[in-house]
Amino acid sequence: MAEASEASERLPASRMTSQYCTFCQLVAGNLPIRKVYEDGEILVFHNQLNWVPVMLLIIPKVHMTQEEVWQSGDLLGRMGQKAVELGDEHCPRGYRVLANFGADAVQSQHHGHLHVIGGVHLGLYVRNPLEH
Amino acid sequence: MAEASEASERLPASRMTSQYCTFCQLVAGNLPIRKVYEDGEILVFHNQLNWVPVMLLIIPKVHMTQEEVWQSGDLLGRMGQKAVELGDEHCPRGYRVLANFGADAVQSQHHGHLHVIGGVHLGLYVRNPLEH
Repeated sequence: MAEASEASERLPASRMTSQYCTFCQLVAGNLPIRKVYEDGEILVFHNQLNWVPVMLLIIPKVHMTQEEVWQSGDLLGRMGQKAVELGDEHCPRGYRVLANFGADAVQSQHHGHLHVIGGVHLGLYVRNPLEH
Repeated sequence: MAEASEASERLPASRMTSQYCTFCQLVAGNLPIRKVYEDGEILVFHNQLNWVPVMLLIIPKVHMTQEEVWQSGDLLGRMGQKAVELGDEHCPRGYRVLANFGADAVQSQHHGHLHVIGGVHLGLYVRNPLEH
């Protein structure tokens, strides 16, 4: 962890393409993935989780924060086009596209990403609407 | 409903800015909203639902399907930038940005839109991960 901290001090976190980012390791080919799509800018693969039948992850190849992805304009536009194309293909009965930001949304990867989930009735987009 | 069907036959559904679309009526000022932001292209307002403390809706002013919004490139880019700006402002502990497509995702409005939800711990982005 000391090494990770030192690396963080040398480079802006948003540009740290490193051994400490799982998604950067996936982009580099250092970890196995079930690839769905790849071009010069983005990579799409199946999430290793199997909570619902279809769980795709769309990520930029360059390390960016979630905020940077969503502030990018063109890049988000391209990721969104791919999300719809693949959602329509993999989930003809419907799907949800989402991104989690921060603790309240249980964001688990710093490297920005879109989730495309479907293949089953997903229910409402808020977990327990009557509890709040 | 007969009138709605006839209108649908005359105009492509994706361009039907009509009395039959609730969001178009909000854009036209024919229904009350709690407005958060507006410019020439997009409108942001508080959802009338209160399932969680922060529920913002970001919509294009022109009637477009969810797929058209996400295939738009530039427009989605602008909506995404606004989502992050308002998410950071309204939900400093985190938030989720999402869009529902079709029946499995319980999409309720044809007019494309982004949800920004937060203000409470949202839990995982899949409702019942252990049931599938």
